[in-house]
Amino acid sequence: MMEETILLSHGSGGKMMHRLVNEIVNEYFSNPLLNKLNDFALCSAGETIAVSTDSFVVSPYFFPGGDIGKLAVCGTVNDVAVSGAEVKYLTVGFIIEEGLLMKDLRRICGSMKKSADEAGVIIVTGDTKVVEKGAADGIFINTTGIGIKKSNYLIGGEYVHPGDNVIVSGTIGDHGIAVMSLREGLSFQTTLESDCAPLNNMISEMLAICSGIRCMRDPTRGGVATTLNEIAQQSAVAITIYEEQLPINPQVQGACDLLGLDPLYVANEGKLLIFVDPEETEKVLAVLKKSPYGKNAALIGEVSTGEPIVSIKTFLGSHRIVDVLSGDQLPRIC
Amino acid sequence: MMEETILLSHGSGGKMMHRLVNEIVNEYFSNPLLNKLNDFALCSAGETIAVSTDSFVVSPYFFPGGDIGKLAVCGTVNDVAVSGAEVKYLTVGFIIEEGLLMKDLRRICGSMKKSADEAGVIIVTGDTKVVEKGAADGIFINTTGIGIKKSNYLIGGEYVHPGDNVIVSGTIGDHGIAVMSLREGLSFQTTLESDCAPLNNMISEMLAICSGIRCMRDPTRGGVATTLNEIAQQSAVAITIYEEQLPINPQVQGACDLLGLDPLYVANEGKLLIFVDPEETEKVLAVLKKSPYGKNAALIGEVSTGEPIVSIKTFLGSHRIVDVLSGDQLPRIC
Repeated sequence: MMEETILLSHGSGGKMMHRLVNEIVNEYFSNPLLNKLNDFALCSAGETIAVSTDSFVVSPYFFPGGDIGKLAVCGTVNDVAVSGAEVKYLTVGFIIEEGLLMKDLRRICGSMKKSADEAGVIIVTGDTKVVEKGAADGIFINTTGIGIKKSNYLIGGEYVHPGDNVIVSGTIGDHGIAVMSLREGLSFQTTLESDCAPLNNMISEMLAICSGIRCMRDPTRGGVATTLNEIAQQSAVAITIYEEQLPINPQVQGACDLLGLDPLYVANEGKLLIFVDPEETEKVLAVLKKSPYGKNAALIGEVSTGEPIVSIKTFLGSHRIVDVLSGDQLPRIC
Repeated sequence: MMEETILLSHGSGGKMMHRLVNEIVNEYFSNPLLNKLNDFALCSAGETIAVSTDSFVVSPYFFPGGDIGKLAVCGTVNDVAVSGAEVKYLTVGFIIEEGLLMKDLRRICGSMKKSADEAGVIIVTGDTKVVEKGAADGIFINTTGIGIKKSNYLIGGEYVHPGDNVIVSGTIGDHGIAVMSLREGLSFQTTLESDCAPLNNMISEMLAICSGIRCMRDPTRGGVATTLNEIAQQSAVAITIYEEQLPINPQVQGACDLLGLDPLYVANEGKLLIFVDPEETEKVLAVLKKSPYGKNAALIGEVSTGEPIVSIKTFLGSHRIVDVLSGDQLPRIC
């Protein structure tokens, strides 16, 4: 019988932690590599591996369409997948506040398992720490992902060319607004769900048939605007997007209008920005639209020579610069 | 000019975060893989890689002989190194409480760099989250380590044989007592320092000349007693240790007597338990004693057939079982 709440003792290295870890491993994460319960995992790998790490601190840790566990798996899977590598292994580190409900932890671990299964990745090693009440906020999760990069296909923020097209794989801002809808003092009615999803299978399908993809990136914290600015800087190119082509869920637009937010800066957790040779744009869009995670994909802009600035052509035909925000619209969204 | 304290905005994905990350990367972690600042790192690797992850929540985050940054690098380096792999890459995830002093963050990053340099590892990718005041406690750090395992030398908790000797690489309990000495309400005078250290180079020297090492493990949370119990379970063997052979710093013994603690359960962060074929014990001890981190190494016990129980032969000649504690003597020690 497991206790109903996490106690400090669950992080102590003693029997209670062993029992907790064993139960969690057996119930959710069992696989031959992890089950050895050494402090390390030996993973087969090719010549080049791709690695990414992310800590997740989203508040609240359950939200429409997902939870911190789903987010922790999908977020890191996506970060590895955009390298063009096949995502294979995950590590997981929990930091848990004393008093977390055991049923919440189980639910979170169940979400992790479900997303890991969908993505085809296994969790090969992990760590659990518990801190006293007030020293954390419920649960934080770090995941590190490892993928194997077989091809020499050069993909990354530094490979974008003038002339490339910019595609987004679906509606923007869904995750940020879904989480926001639960925040104290900001509650509003919505049926909106987070877009949180593992995108590695969709990415593999694209890479299997397209050779002109320069860069893929998931526009999470800081949203599409921030990610586009990062890439403009990395490749020293100008990027123009077209307001009328941006796919935005009406509920997201409505909430943004209400809250004074710009959906371009709102976080996504299941979307990709894709920079592609214009000759392959149609092919990429066709693959995306066949996936449940890409059905609203759209061509939203293009790359040109010039200062590394992102601008938007508005509904009115005017241009305005889309800069990076100094601070945050929405803290603890991932 | 960087601000003096961490603000929520430093975790937002906006300019302030970019500036912070760029400064930190340039000043402390610069290397060709990390400098690409993609969300992923491409790492050359052989056929088998070793991976380990750990989150560090030690309180206070500065302590005699180290800090949370040194700990985060050494702890994970050691966990990978005991696999017999050559430790190559680290990922780092920071969770920072709003209000952390920038000088503290710099000092912690400086420690990370120093330890990483000593260990010969590079930090290939990272992540920074900031949470509001009260939602964390200063700073938490996750590190994931990746090593390359070239030989087929089987090392792990499951490979211990009856007849093997048990070696500890130095005095036990130093880390736990050094951290404890600073805790509110428990302050006592000591010149004791944490043993926190990267052990991978010492391990490589052992493996280069010994072929009879079955298992190495760093006895961190739960101390020597807990680690021995884990290994007894994994290999289904009995382990006996000899009280009179345990190297214990008199200051640690004194503090334990004062506080009612047993040094066998106190955390270490720069020590190894080594299980070795008795024919190689002297060779291993000779290598250890030549290293600054192994100069107090000692043969402390042996393995036999029987129930997977750890027992100690006391100074008085009696035997007592050394069980795993149910909870924790010392929370947040690593």
